[in-house]
Amino acid sequence: MQNSGGSEPKNSCDIGVIGLGVMGKNLALNLADHGYQVACFDLDAKRIDAIVAQDKKENGAESSRIVPVHTLKALRSALVSPAVILLSIPAGKPVDQVCEQLIEAGINTDDVIIDTGNSLWSDSVAREQRFADNFLFFTTAVSGGEVGARFGPSLMPSGSEQAWERVGPMLKAIAAKVDPDTGKPIETTTPGQPVKDGEPCAAYIGPNGAGHYVKMVHNGIEYADMQLICEAYQIMRVALAMSPSEIAAVFRRWNQGALDSYLIEISAEVLDQTDPETQAPLVDVILDKAGMKGTGLWTAVSALQTGSPAQTIAQAVFARSLSALKDERVEAEKVLAGPAVETVSETQRETVIKQLEHALYCSKICAYAQGFQLMKAAAAEQGWTLHFAEIAKIWRAGCIIRAVFLQSISNAFDRDIELPNLLVDPFFAEQIATHQQDWRATVALSAVQGVACPAMMSALSYYDSYRTAVLPANLLQGQRDFFGAHTFSRTDKPAGEKYHIEWSDPSRPLQLI
Amino acid sequence: MQNSGGSEPKNSCDIGVIGLGVMGKNLALNLADHGYQVACFDLDAKRIDAIVAQDKKENGAESSRIVPVHTLKALRSALVSPAVILLSIPAGKPVDQVCEQLIEAGINTDDVIIDTGNSLWSDSVAREQRFADNFLFFTTAVSGGEVGARFGPSLMPSGSEQAWERVGPMLKAIAAKVDPDTGKPIETTTPGQPVKDGEPCAAYIGPNGAGHYVKMVHNGIEYADMQLICEAYQIMRVALAMSPSEIAAVFRRWNQGALDSYLIEISAEVLDQTDPETQAPLVDVILDKAGMKGTGLWTAVSALQTGSPAQTIAQAVFARSLSALKDERVEAEKVLAGPAVETVSETQRETVIKQLEHALYCSKICAYAQGFQLMKAAAAEQGWTLHFAEIAKIWRAGCIIRAVFLQSISNAFDRDIELPNLLVDPFFAEQIATHQQDWRATVALSAVQGVACPAMMSALSYYDSYRTAVLPANLLQGQRDFFGAHTFSRTDKPAGEKYHIEWSDPSRPLQLI
Repeated sequence: MQNSGGSEPKNSCDIGVIGLGVMGKNLALNLADHGYQVACFDLDAKRIDAIVAQDKKENGAESSRIVPVHTLKALRSALVSPAVILLSIPAGKPVDQVCEQLIEAGINTDDVIIDTGNSLWSDSVAREQRFADNFLFFTTAVSGGEVGARFGPSLMPSGSEQAWERVGPMLKAIAAKVDPDTGKPIETTTPGQPVKDGEPCAAYIGPNGAGHYVKMVHNGIEYADMQLICEAYQIMRVALAMSPSEIAAVFRRWNQGALDSYLIEISAEVLDQTDPETQAPLVDVILDKAGMKGTGLWTAVSALQTGSPAQTIAQAVFARSLSALKDERVEAEKVLAGPAVETVSETQRETVIKQLEHALYCSKICAYAQGFQLMKAAAAEQGWTLHFAEIAKIWRAGCIIRAVFLQSISNAFDRDIELPNLLVDPFFAEQIATHQQDWRATVALSAVQGVACPAMMSALSYYDSYRTAVLPANLLQGQRDFFGAHTFSRTDKPAGEKYHIEWSDPSRPLQLI
Repeated sequence: MQNSGGSEPKNSCDIGVIGLGVMGKNLALNLADHGYQVACFDLDAKRIDAIVAQDKKENGAESSRIVPVHTLKALRSALVSPAVILLSIPAGKPVDQVCEQLIEAGINTDDVIIDTGNSLWSDSVAREQRFADNFLFFTTAVSGGEVGARFGPSLMPSGSEQAWERVGPMLKAIAAKVDPDTGKPIETTTPGQPVKDGEPCAAYIGPNGAGHYVKMVHNGIEYADMQLICEAYQIMRVALAMSPSEIAAVFRRWNQGALDSYLIEISAEVLDQTDPETQAPLVDVILDKAGMKGTGLWTAVSALQTGSPAQTIAQAVFARSLSALKDERVEAEKVLAGPAVETVSETQRETVIKQLEHALYCSKICAYAQGFQLMKAAAAEQGWTLHFAEIAKIWRAGCIIRAVFLQSISNAFDRDIELPNLLVDPFFAEQIATHQQDWRATVALSAVQGVACPAMMSALSYYDSYRTAVLPANLLQGQRDFFGAHTFSRTDKPAGEKYHIEWSDPSRPLQLI
């Protein structure tokens, strides 16, 4: 293969990175920190210059492992064979286009291309098939935002095991690390001094598509977790009439207990933040219209389609849609009645806060239970073998939902690899048994006070539905048979037998359909 | 065009029906009752014989308007020109196949084909384009089950206005009729004596796809309505320890008031039904695993995708999925704790039932508000002009959600054609204002009693979210900016301006992105 650029390096780089936006640049610098020689390409030459400059500044010119290249041909020439190329480009069509261009640039059948974007999982499955004759298409979902990418993300790799053997060591190297004794992240934000010890937050998830599916569900859980925290905030703000900084103090206290997590930690920081312009609490200056990029929505759609009741995740998505109707809400507040109640008295405040902490914890358990239940359903549908204890482990650091709590989830699946639902794990069952009265009190309070808690309420109804042996779906099946002859099964006969009653003449024997 | 069958009729029939299953047969008999000559075809000759026999039995041989045909060519030859052909066949591929076969059979470009199946609305849009050079593709969604099809369904026709001019009179003739004075259905179940007066439940909805979309949302609302009734039943059954027949009596009482509807009526009938085999209440013998055919799920998916918060409809879909996990629920009941409370005392029973009636009513208003909000969002996306007052009117009879209540909805959109949400209509706003305390008390009771009420809770949180000018989405936007630099808008600046704060050094001025 010819190298078109005269002065560009040949056959010396360990990995290539295409796309030097925030994520790609940081992944490349992270790889370099771990000793890999990284050939870096972007369509925008300024971005190539920028990573070279940042690397020089951080590490000095001599020890640089960032190798700029200016064409895809040069990129391939710069790499050892067989090559590994990591894509950090927008999901969707661009991934297909770059793959096509890499084929033209002379990629080999045993080269590995790793897509790190937020691709739809089913697109990844299609891509592997489409490019099977050209190269090994592999993916790794990346969680942790820009800081994670730079100093240790949570990685969810999937594709052929052959490719994993080659890229696994690199991905484990750059992943976030967990202290095996405490289960907590080992943090760093110092360039050139990466974390080398600890348990890496990267584990092979399964065939192509599986990793992105798991990442999608991670994001769905993240939506629910964030929404639940927001509801706890809103109860304190409205029903307890507390200030943002008072609420921040409560969150910091909670962060010492079972709720200890990155999201609680940053919520406290956001609430403590003053607006540099107005000196008001920043949260009161931020417009309450939530944005979203689609992964939470995909999770909810997938839950509907697989028949897996991830209702708290769906509620979190709907809460964002509803928040977007700001103008309508402002008008509605003027004409729609709320309850005639007073805020909770000062003397009751601590009791309510304690109940709220437990309500948030129980709701959070349900949201995670739904996410794992959904992954289980999808795995059954797709023929994947997902290792849930491993998945919980790689979420302990690097990603947005990182929390000590994930160690407990990992333990639950270690105790019982076939666990049908997190709720019935002895640890979680006992946790909810201990705290459920407080959870119920909180939901009742929010109903009476008129503070919307869609996610917390849906979590409670999920719990109460799941633990109910006889649901009113029997009446529903009766309705369906009445108006549409949809038939029903009987509790005293095999579930496969379908019966219909002649409702216009119900004295007649049931018909076995 | 040549007619292949020697003895078969030529150019005399007003309409052809393809597919003589329960729905197709009944639509054909309904058309014949209204004086139309109907050419009837099915691939299964036994079904052709069956409709001829049923028609003879009901109307005598002389006055028969059912004309059997045995090929598609014969069908076309039997019809006047231009022809109208109604398909009552399974949704999906079969519709395309029959359309292709009709082209081969010599259909003309000005013939109209009406698809009456439960097609996905976007498939209907694609079909009209695909067959534009061959014939006029039209659809009408049909609600009302087999009885509706026979004696008067609710019809949601859509397609070209040119086709509507031709088929409108037939569809209005066979549709259910409403007494204009009472707003109630004019019922009949006597063959040969159709209802001819009254307001027909058939109105042109809009371009192709619109009718099936509206029908899809109808079904989504139906899911929510049924689930809400089931939750009311469950509260009485579990928290009030009432028997099925006692609950049936309550439903019959409710059916005299604001909740007056077909679904409440049949719920009472189902609950009063004894199992012919065991003499136990039938509802206790019916297995509590709900089935579904997809339209409710499509509605929830569409709500997620259009960003319209139809959360009570989605909860109803998830409630069905959760009910399907029967074996897991039976096991979970053994290990998951419920609340330690006693059932409601006899002396409190009537109070709680009154509260529950109002809770069901308020929740129902929210479910319908969500459905209409979703149609509004979809119409904006698709460029449809939907007449919501008309849509509510054609749901007053014939369909599963028929109820006097729909007259109030129609009135609301008559008052304000641009109404952003049913909730802010003065009538509904006042209804909820009057009853909200009871609704809140019911939700609180179900939380404390441990009776799962996912739909009722989601309806309350929808109401409380919608009437809240400042939601905690401000904190959520702060979280998103913190971990992902997703930016936020400010309340004191144009919403289009996006800001980012440097969280690692928050004393710096905000960046306008």
